[in-house]
Amino acid sequence: MSEDIRAGEIVTALPETFDAGVYFIGRIRTPWKTRSECPRNARGSDAVCTIELDPRYAAALDGVATCTHLVVLYFMHEARRDLVVQVSRHSGRRGTFALRSPVRPNPIALSVVRLLRIEGTTLSVVGLDCLDGTPLIDIKPYFASVDAVPEAVVGWSKGGKE
Amino acid sequence: MSEDIRAGEIVTALPETFDAGVYFIGRIRTPWKTRSECPRNARGSDAVCTIELDPRYAAALDGVATCTHLVVLYFMHEARRDLVVQVSRHSGRRGTFALRSPVRPNPIALSVVRLLRIEGTTLSVVGLDCLDGTPLIDIKPYFASVDAVPEAVVGWSKGGKE
Repeated sequence: MSEDIRAGEIVTALPETFDAGVYFIGRIRTPWKTRSECPRNARGSDAVCTIELDPRYAAALDGVATCTHLVVLYFMHEARRDLVVQVSRHSGRRGTFALRSPVRPNPIALSVVRLLRIEGTTLSVVGLDCLDGTPLIDIKPYFASVDAVPEAVVGWSKGGKE
Repeated sequence: MSEDIRAGEIVTALPETFDAGVYFIGRIRTPWKTRSECPRNARGSDAVCTIELDPRYAAALDGVATCTHLVVLYFMHEARRDLVVQVSRHSGRRGTFALRSPVRPNPIALSVVRLLRIEGTTLSVVGLDCLDGTPLIDIKPYFASVDAVPEAVVGWSKGGKE
């Protein structure tokens, strides 16, 4: 994939083996079929997306309907994993851990979503910006007491998720 | 591990194989050597913890020092993964996805931390509540624009992270 590297980007040597495994526990359905169609910032879209949970985990949804917001973790399985410095028109030249780019050693993305409803093992939510078919890896309750930091600043950014 | 199940808890059959792999990209150093020593809620502790990043990813920290807060993902590698309903004195009987418990199909925890400083590949932060030696899997910038939802409610909880 070296032809995909832009001037200024840096590749690292990843370890030869993985240290742990993850299960795909469901799929995320969104209106976006290609990367270029995805919204740049999930707050910029009020599209309703659905999370289709594998029925083997159905009982794990007990109590989730009492949450107004959830943290959703998903796996950006099409992304390369070895770039430590990335260059983009939008964000300039940045270290991977200063970005929310799917390109990272562990391509696990997180989105905070608003829960609309749950029907069986299908959750309807607002706030996702990923490709249709993206594998789901976790759903967590969002606790404002520990997760909300309105005063947080990303100094290099003019605002918005990069 | 069936002897560890409490009355009312439900076990599911996990898939036979993993769908993807993760790398441990560093280690988290905290003052807590056993589960019982860990604070119940990270906001309840102002202990300074350190994140020791594998030097192969050093360049990926470029720009991170401009962030006041980060999202840290880590792997709770000692937790069982097959409980879909859990019972605890503190939280009652709840579905796994209504809890922040380390016991979940993919034991990936997330904490929002305040960044104090970076020295080489060591980050000093406030806001972690995990065991000393916990494997690190990701560091992300915290964007208040998409990550902060102060009005979020977890209806079943009286407050605090469960």
